Amino acid sequence: MQLLKDRIIKDGVVKPGNILKVDSFLNHQMDIAFINELGKEFKRLFADKPINKVLTIEASGIGIACITAQYFNVPVVFAKKAQSVNLDGDMYTTKVESFTHKKVYDVILSSKFLGPEDHVLIIDDFLANGCALLGLIDIVQKSGATIEGAGIVIEKGFQEGGAKIREMGINLKSLAIVEEMSDDSLTFRADEE
Amino acid sequence: MQLLKDRIIKDGVVKPGNILKVDSFLNHQMDIAFINELGKEFKRLFADKPINKVLTIEASGIGIACITAQYFNVPVVFAKKAQSVNLDGDMYTTKVESFTHKKVYDVILSSKFLGPEDHVLIIDDFLANGCALLGLIDIVQKSGATIEGAGIVIEKGFQEGGAKIREMGINLKSLAIVEEMSDDSLTFRADEE
Repeated sequence: MQLLKDRIIKDGVVKPGNILKVDSFLNHQMDIAFINELGKEFKRLFADKPINKVLTIEASGIGIACITAQYFNVPVVFAKKAQSVNLDGDMYTTKVESFTHKKVYDVILSSKFLGPEDHVLIIDDFLANGCALLGLIDIVQKSGATIEGAGIVIEKGFQEGGAKIREMGINLKSLAIVEEMSDDSLTFRADEE
Repeated sequence: MQLLKDRIIKDGVVKPGNILKVDSFLNHQMDIAFINELGKEFKRLFADKPINKVLTIEASGIGIACITAQYFNVPVVFAKKAQSVNLDGDMYTTKVESFTHKKVYDVILSSKFLGPEDHVLIIDDFLANGCALLGLIDIVQKSGATIEGAGIVIEKGFQEGGAKIREMGINLKSLAIVEEMSDDSLTFRADEE
């Protein structure tokens, strides 16, 4: 998606260690008008799927998922990191390793909100090693729901997550795929369509 | 706001210990069409304020803030709980006690995204003892920005947060104020307008 690539070039900050900071428009400060354009693009990419629920994981996926869900006219469900005392009842649980925070989270979703009747679009801001997305896929599989697709804003194509998830047969679409990063620059993979 | 009160009566679950669960439509599963109505109401309540940024705190405030920000045509900034290794540079920090999770969080916001030129509307899903909102107010005050108002979806009027924050002179509007809770029912305060 050219609009996104242009914005990453303009406002993204590349740092040593394959770090791409997009916190001025995507995941700390959020440019809502711009994120609406991402939501429209996700709708275009998954328009033919019978999606009835958008699934994401807290925290930075939630806003993007909510804006995107408007174009599908469906609710959002977000998986939570770690146990909350107010979340009782039956839950799907999985474990997710975060390289950013260097720890393993328990990720939970109330079983009331996902079941065999659901057709799910998973949305998240970043895909790198794939741990968060694999955790969400595990939760959907435990629920018996159907994964109609996964929509990612920025994929680090040089890490293994994307290949691993496409090999599982998941219909994964990333709006921008970073092919290579150096200490201060990056190149994108050409768009599929 | 009658629409919200009706929804709480219909889908909220009251539990012993003053717990009100609205996780089927507000803060775990999110009814996006309904949350758009909340966003429109926040716009109505703060229409005369020169708001240029919506501020919230992760996680459950983010979606509501993003939907609401659409009606103001402004970006969202969300404060983060605990240090992330990808958040470098200057930050505003404060401490917030969570009674739900029974711990004290460090809450941080990059100083790039809030400064003396900003006019802020704070948005969050719940107000009870006020700790999260006081933390956000502290961050705005540290930044030199102006607090134009605080919009809360559900306030527990029998806890001290609302009174404390109104006494500070903050223009606080809650879409529904729960006046009293028993082990299995609740009553609302009458709407102001």
